[in-house]
Amino acid sequence: MADAGATDGPVRPTPGAAVAHMPLSRQDVHLADGLLQQWQQRNRAASLPLALRQLEAAGNLDNLRLASSGANTGYRGPAFMDSDVYKTLEAISWELGRTGDSELADFAAEATALVAKAQQDDGYLNSCVQVTGRPRYARLESSHELYCAGHLIQAGVAAARSFNGGTLLGVARRFADHLVSTFLGTQGGLDGHPIIETALMELYRQTGTPAYLELASQFVDARGHGLIGDSGFGSRYLQDAVPVRELTALAGHAVRALYLESGVVDVAVETGDTHLMASSIARWEDMVATKTALTGSNGSRHSGEAFGDAFELPPDRSYNETCAAIASFHWSWRLLLATGDAKYADLMERVLYNGFGAALSADGQRFFYVNPLQRRADHFENDDPGRRREWFSCACCPPNIMRLIASLDHYIATLGGDVLYLHQLTGAQISAPVAGDMLSVDVTTRYPWDGSIEFHVRSAPGSECGLAVRIPAWCSGISASYNGQPVSAESDEHGYLILRRRWRPGDVLTCSLDLTPRLTHASRRVDALRGAVALERGPLVYCFEQADQQAGSVEDLAISSGALAERMISLPGVGPTVALEADALQLPPASDDGLPYLPQPDTSTGGRPATAVAIPYFQWDNRDGRAMRIWMPLSRSDSPATS
Amino acid sequence: MADAGATDGPVRPTPGAAVAHMPLSRQDVHLADGLLQQWQQRNRAASLPLALRQLEAAGNLDNLRLASSGANTGYRGPAFMDSDVYKTLEAISWELGRTGDSELADFAAEATALVAKAQQDDGYLNSCVQVTGRPRYARLESSHELYCAGHLIQAGVAAARSFNGGTLLGVARRFADHLVSTFLGTQGGLDGHPIIETALMELYRQTGTPAYLELASQFVDARGHGLIGDSGFGSRYLQDAVPVRELTALAGHAVRALYLESGVVDVAVETGDTHLMASSIARWEDMVATKTALTGSNGSRHSGEAFGDAFELPPDRSYNETCAAIASFHWSWRLLLATGDAKYADLMERVLYNGFGAALSADGQRFFYVNPLQRRADHFENDDPGRRREWFSCACCPPNIMRLIASLDHYIATLGGDVLYLHQLTGAQISAPVAGDMLSVDVTTRYPWDGSIEFHVRSAPGSECGLAVRIPAWCSGISASYNGQPVSAESDEHGYLILRRRWRPGDVLTCSLDLTPRLTHASRRVDALRGAVALERGPLVYCFEQADQQAGSVEDLAISSGALAERMISLPGVGPTVALEADALQLPPASDDGLPYLPQPDTSTGGRPATAVAIPYFQWDNRDGRAMRIWMPLSRSDSPATS
Repeated sequence: MADAGATDGPVRPTPGAAVAHMPLSRQDVHLADGLLQQWQQRNRAASLPLALRQLEAAGNLDNLRLASSGANTGYRGPAFMDSDVYKTLEAISWELGRTGDSELADFAAEATALVAKAQQDDGYLNSCVQVTGRPRYARLESSHELYCAGHLIQAGVAAARSFNGGTLLGVARRFADHLVSTFLGTQGGLDGHPIIETALMELYRQTGTPAYLELASQFVDARGHGLIGDSGFGSRYLQDAVPVRELTALAGHAVRALYLESGVVDVAVETGDTHLMASSIARWEDMVATKTALTGSNGSRHSGEAFGDAFELPPDRSYNETCAAIASFHWSWRLLLATGDAKYADLMERVLYNGFGAALSADGQRFFYVNPLQRRADHFENDDPGRRREWFSCACCPPNIMRLIASLDHYIATLGGDVLYLHQLTGAQISAPVAGDMLSVDVTTRYPWDGSIEFHVRSAPGSECGLAVRIPAWCSGISASYNGQPVSAESDEHGYLILRRRWRPGDVLTCSLDLTPRLTHASRRVDALRGAVALERGPLVYCFEQADQQAGSVEDLAISSGALAERMISLPGVGPTVALEADALQLPPASDDGLPYLPQPDTSTGGRPATAVAIPYFQWDNRDGRAMRIWMPLSRSDSPATS
Repeated sequence: MADAGATDGPVRPTPGAAVAHMPLSRQDVHLADGLLQQWQQRNRAASLPLALRQLEAAGNLDNLRLASSGANTGYRGPAFMDSDVYKTLEAISWELGRTGDSELADFAAEATALVAKAQQDDGYLNSCVQVTGRPRYARLESSHELYCAGHLIQAGVAAARSFNGGTLLGVARRFADHLVSTFLGTQGGLDGHPIIETALMELYRQTGTPAYLELASQFVDARGHGLIGDSGFGSRYLQDAVPVRELTALAGHAVRALYLESGVVDVAVETGDTHLMASSIARWEDMVATKTALTGSNGSRHSGEAFGDAFELPPDRSYNETCAAIASFHWSWRLLLATGDAKYADLMERVLYNGFGAALSADGQRFFYVNPLQRRADHFENDDPGRRREWFSCACCPPNIMRLIASLDHYIATLGGDVLYLHQLTGAQISAPVAGDMLSVDVTTRYPWDGSIEFHVRSAPGSECGLAVRIPAWCSGISASYNGQPVSAESDEHGYLILRRRWRPGDVLTCSLDLTPRLTHASRRVDALRGAVALERGPLVYCFEQADQQAGSVEDLAISSGALAERMISLPGVGPTVALEADALQLPPASDDGLPYLPQPDTSTGGRPATAVAIPYFQWDNRDGRAMRIWMPLSRSDSPATS
């Protein structure tokens, strides 16, 4: 297979891959006015320019300059500083695929030239190793050499798919060829931090070179046999305790575990390995059932940035690293393509609007690395009060956020057989090749704020084909109409409402999802959430910030009824949003006399009626740094009547 | 003041100190048959011999040998390896003060000679610095040089007070004199890990040298001004963010914060500094009300081994380092002496029988570093399944356990005015100098298993004096009699039942505490414990281990009534114990289909009646490595009727 043209987004299975759906070409999906498009605009206008400044200030670019000049001193930052440059280049590539921002294009050209200059003659490239003089591949458990290579390769693929960026792809291929010649057929090359697996698979898809598939497959199967050196956290941390095919639950460092799964699925679909695929699906099912926060986030432990035990899901102390949300999104997308099951798009939606969405400030210039579901008053983690920050000494998250947002349009829709599937319900113009012709629709919606979604057919093939819209699992009420006539709104076994028609230009399919706010309870197995409820509306998880509570401390509120009201408010620094109001009791402050343990239940006596006000979680921490909580106690320990 | 004789235990306020109570001389308290005496016997027979082997195997003794021979290579282990030797020597000192174990005495003599030989001419002593050649005091935020000095001084004081071990005290004094000449009057000498403060105070008390008091006082007041270098965890971690006198709540590394408080109280009582004392008391009150587990343990976070925010008390993830329990015990003892308030002895009791008691296996040969209140099935923390271990690469806890157990007899009773106070209710022979004579009593009890406590007066002064027994705060029913006649069992404002009499030999005072098992609930502010109950009996917190549940998984049990029954059982490897039985429901396993979040409360449907069996928490993990939990859900979310 020759190099693909500059038409693809991230994750492009080969024509022979064992997938149920194929992504659409990048020219065929354009986001229209709406939240996700606003995020992309903010990404270009605010976040990416910030990244360019920070990469200069933190030394990432200087490190590459040092490497390209052959310097042997002056390296700054952790070993994986190069990867932040590569992630930024990937973000810019997806961005330039849509827009022609000259500042970004100039940076991409300069940084690409710098990267190419820093690459060594045999294809090796790592500014930390080159400048510090450490031996290559000597401590792969912690050196991140193949991790950086993976991000370089992903950036090279993105450049090639977005603006024919052959230079960066060439650098990536030379490094990949070096890796093949160094590690293929050996037991070496297992990096402590996966991502090389999926990067090599994408490079294989881009170039058709079988050796990249072979090396990725080798890395996947070699993992779990204790071949990686000791990083100090043990073998589970590195996903090196159990072979991938035998592993039933994710453990260890969350981002590493989740990145590996994308590589696992890529290998499985390209090799038709159903056993490998089944193992990844089983781990996804386990993760969702036992290790996922209401916000869709993963990784319950600060210690080791790791997955916790099953049902260990504390709202206050869950780490929920932003990069883990991104990694989960990437994994679910691959499983969605492989299976066509809406549950994967459901989780992507939950991650997107909640665990991931909250990682960025409203102005796009501050970032969360850790995403808890609760922040107490006077919170501190070491010397950190738990607010978003402009950058980090370990800055993996910000450019990772940017590359996902820049590519969000690629994750909206797919083609499955002769059906155009809309997975993420957002305004867009979408076209897909069906029956030798194009099915083109305009999607109009204010989702996630409003549940109405309209499809206007612009052009259609002459034969019958399908339009499908995901029915979110949280949605209990839906209606649909075709050209004004009600049609069945039943979803199929995969979770989609599918309408098959001989479509004509001007046809209108309308779906209306019930966004009535709802109370959500936790499984009794989630010890940390017993006796508490959360508020959700559509795909949005809500939270109670201190700034919105008029009656007193958010720590002393308790929900007293299931009746929820909506109110449009304007959040300073954010803009208009849909707030929710719940009947509550404002309780007197807790006793500070003696241990917080009592011979009788701590009933909600002495409380006065109050209104608890909630805003979408993804919009929190845009005002002060005070308390926030998603899960709120019930004022009576039994459940309130739900409305 | 001349050197005190070999008559004192740990913490001996000077005659002029601002204290309400004075400890008794070590000859005047002897534990009689009972749990605490069994712990001391196990300590001598099993734990201390293990420590001697481990100090040899891990390299602690070799490090000192290297230092004493002037070697400059070969140092093993973390920087504070010397402190494990000193803690062991302290434990042995308290042990030799009671017994004449020749193996321990031989080790003490050899190790003391080794330590003396390793000491440098100017008094400095630190095998890590000496062998590695690192500069002295250059990185006090992490070098632990004064931390090791503190434990050396404490060992020297213990040796002097127990068997006239003048050699070790001499080493300690020479090092202390070196510290005085180096740091007194400077801004230096603040160690990242406190303990030097209380060690210098004890050395002052032992020797009467004012410079030790002055240096300890200087260290206390210099802390909190950001003078310590960056350890990577920030200034709160090191108790260096807020001056001690202004600090209202403990934060940062729990053991460090708690060790510092012992020094703070020691300085306050010896200087009559009521402001400093009040600040420490306020922090103790805050810690108890907002940051203490039901087991008495402290330190909610694995990350940084640190205190959490107020009411951040997760049962599963609380770190609860064993050394923090010991440090809390030491701090509360000092506050008890200063104030005479039973609440401090109450916390000491809770720590002793629960958070501290559980740190050691029934055979005395395995140790917990981390003491959670819940371990889920299939638990892992990195590669560690969460069971006790024989030793640790950072082995601070095991010898710390040993030094506390070896000195437990010193923490039982005090003299306040002309009243002999019994704080810890255990079998003992106790004498106290009252009115120029001795009041001597035999205390007979099976506490904590039984609530009956008998005082048999052996000798008494001719004048009236008092006998006092602490009435634990958990106790709701007590009766007392004097020579068979009922007397008032009211406690005074300090929490003690005091009987004043002109006592005669043969007099018998009997107290009977109601140990009826009880349900305990958490304050509503403890989010992690909502809707759950714990079982307690007397001072013992109970836990549900999987091994005792016949009906199914301990994760699927829920308490269904407040009726609790007692049953004597024999725990394999432990012996007879008092188990508790509660009516429960055995619920069907949790769904693994989709997210663990539901549109309605997860009610306990489908459960079948079962009996939940609990054992004392301090006896857990002596069988298999399966699940354990102290806090158990209620099957109905409102409270069961309490019996």
